[in-house]
Amino acid sequence: MGGKPFMFELIHQSKKSRARVGKIHTPHGVIDTPGFVAVGTNATLKSLDTKTVSEIGLQLMFCNTYHLMLQPGTDLIKKAGGLHKFMNRSMPLITDSGGFQVFSLMYGTVKDELKSKGAKKGNNAILRVDEDGVLFRSYRDGSPVLLTPERSVQAQKDLGADIIIPFDELPPYHIDQKKLIESLHRTHRWEERSLNEHRKNINGQAMYAVIHGGIDPELRKLSCQTLTKLPFDGFAIGGSLGKTKEQMITMLQGMMPLLPDDKPNHLLGIGDLYSIEQCVKLGIDTFDSSHPTRSARHGTLFAKQGQVKILNSAHKQAFEPIENGCGCMVCKNYTRAYLHHLFKAKEMTGYTLATIHNLYFMVELMREYRERIAQGEL
Amino acid sequence: MGGKPFMFELIHQSKKSRARVGKIHTPHGVIDTPGFVAVGTNATLKSLDTKTVSEIGLQLMFCNTYHLMLQPGTDLIKKAGGLHKFMNRSMPLITDSGGFQVFSLMYGTVKDELKSKGAKKGNNAILRVDEDGVLFRSYRDGSPVLLTPERSVQAQKDLGADIIIPFDELPPYHIDQKKLIESLHRTHRWEERSLNEHRKNINGQAMYAVIHGGIDPELRKLSCQTLTKLPFDGFAIGGSLGKTKEQMITMLQGMMPLLPDDKPNHLLGIGDLYSIEQCVKLGIDTFDSSHPTRSARHGTLFAKQGQVKILNSAHKQAFEPIENGCGCMVCKNYTRAYLHHLFKAKEMTGYTLATIHNLYFMVELMREYRERIAQGEL
Repeated sequence: MGGKPFMFELIHQSKKSRARVGKIHTPHGVIDTPGFVAVGTNATLKSLDTKTVSEIGLQLMFCNTYHLMLQPGTDLIKKAGGLHKFMNRSMPLITDSGGFQVFSLMYGTVKDELKSKGAKKGNNAILRVDEDGVLFRSYRDGSPVLLTPERSVQAQKDLGADIIIPFDELPPYHIDQKKLIESLHRTHRWEERSLNEHRKNINGQAMYAVIHGGIDPELRKLSCQTLTKLPFDGFAIGGSLGKTKEQMITMLQGMMPLLPDDKPNHLLGIGDLYSIEQCVKLGIDTFDSSHPTRSARHGTLFAKQGQVKILNSAHKQAFEPIENGCGCMVCKNYTRAYLHHLFKAKEMTGYTLATIHNLYFMVELMREYRERIAQGEL
Repeated sequence: MGGKPFMFELIHQSKKSRARVGKIHTPHGVIDTPGFVAVGTNATLKSLDTKTVSEIGLQLMFCNTYHLMLQPGTDLIKKAGGLHKFMNRSMPLITDSGGFQVFSLMYGTVKDELKSKGAKKGNNAILRVDEDGVLFRSYRDGSPVLLTPERSVQAQKDLGADIIIPFDELPPYHIDQKKLIESLHRTHRWEERSLNEHRKNINGQAMYAVIHGGIDPELRKLSCQTLTKLPFDGFAIGGSLGKTKEQMITMLQGMMPLLPDDKPNHLLGIGDLYSIEQCVKLGIDTFDSSHPTRSARHGTLFAKQGQVKILNSAHKQAFEPIENGCGCMVCKNYTRAYLHHLFKAKEMTGYTLATIHNLYFMVELMREYRERIAQGEL
């Protein structure tokens, strides 16, 4: 990859909290932090093309290695010249290892699991998990696929995202202590193997470790201590952080001081507005979540005064933008009444416009956090 | 409405055929003819927002009164300031009378009917048809809706499109001669009632008559003679024109000389590339069809060398645009391989990009026809 090498620049550290403003320099440009990272699983943000996403100003976009391995195949994306070229994105990208999706096949997501009270998901897609890695069946054609730390990294080399993630195990929320410890140690070994594989051919990519340890503060501490000793470029926080947002915040309060100040960090899969507010104060640099884009497709539009449920009949005759003063293309051009109609008529255009608005909202929200931190307000 | 009054300007009449180049001036700007009219049933082109449609250069867009009556209601659109303002379109719009959709409920479309060999569609949505109009049940909430010539025109006044259509009956393809004649005379009476209603409050709108007469050349002649005596602003050709494209062309060859040269004409619901080529030579000015946009959503992309079926595995590794040299946003930014992937992954973005390309193709195609006619080639 061309462009600048990966580098984290700390611009401002709040004196009131751990909140900080930074710039992550990558071969494909700068990511201002704290920053929001939207999820475009299949090499596209749902309902938006790359050009539109760039116009909105989304600086970092998350794609899922698991999905891209199975469709269209990371070898094909490599032939296309990498993921940036394949999807024609000039701005930074991050990919995950595939681990989260593969283990979600086995256990369901933590959310599903909490709902089902720990009953294992009756899914026979996983054929084997051992020290080497995971053998699972493709959801597309049933063929067996082996995912190991090395293979995950090779796939992410094919994709060529600016930031990549080592292969890790996502342990279930309901797990006994012995198994959680075993899982954590194996994850640490897998992450080190991933890092070694990555360092054979760095090619401008940065690798963030993933801190695990479930809901055990001591194991979280151990994970921070173990992984920060290795030459990772940044630190992501993964795995279950508890049942409630409060538990997550308590856990992060304990962990964040254990991460190095001179490297960027990322909170995996959290993107609701309350959590972002709290976690920005704890010093989280980036957040990825499909929450704003999924909410958009379900008709929940973000606004400073609170959510706008666009299908609500109150909006039928609301000839005003989603949010007065919002600078997004949607608010400048269309009314709530028109969006209400598009959603009622189940028109794809509605989903597209809602997605543009919510993504713009997130980009602006993070810009405001950066301003507030820089001005000493946070 | 502000802007210029409706006026047809004949720019060039071919000496080789009836093909002609013209400009339809409307309160919302010019429509160059021959021109393609895309169908945005629910006040949006499927998967595209108004701004994108305008950028592609689509000069005239078709919306369906029937659908808009039922959702969101033409009264609501009137409150919004009319259809242009509701959907934020500054360029010309045309609406139909609702007749086509209501009678399609009763008989199915001519296409369905031909498939089912004339068996009536078992649909009890139509409650009554008489001289006054049609009483039918809303597909949205089951409530009875009365559509008469006057009500259709009032609805189209609420919508405020630049070009509106009188209420007509769509007789089935399989109809005996006596009933076809009765239907034609009733349609003529309905169209005259529509025109009278329209002329009470013209408000910058133009009304095109709809020529009927089914597949009987004498009745088509009668319809032309009857309707051209009335002060319509243009003439649309509706109803069944035969089972095959050749029958349609033969029928149009007979009819076109019966329409006045100084008024624009429109061929309703025909938009395949072969028919357009033939009909341009017969002097058709505008064509509306959902064919290019529906094809796009099904992965059929238009190109000069022929259709590109994007889901075909031949395109999996085709790192080239849909069409080399195409100036559309999609061909300038994305490859067939990427589009193939988006369609395989069933991503909405794929449908959007395909729609942009096909619509741009149609706009360019018509521009080329105008050039060829002006240069004496057609």
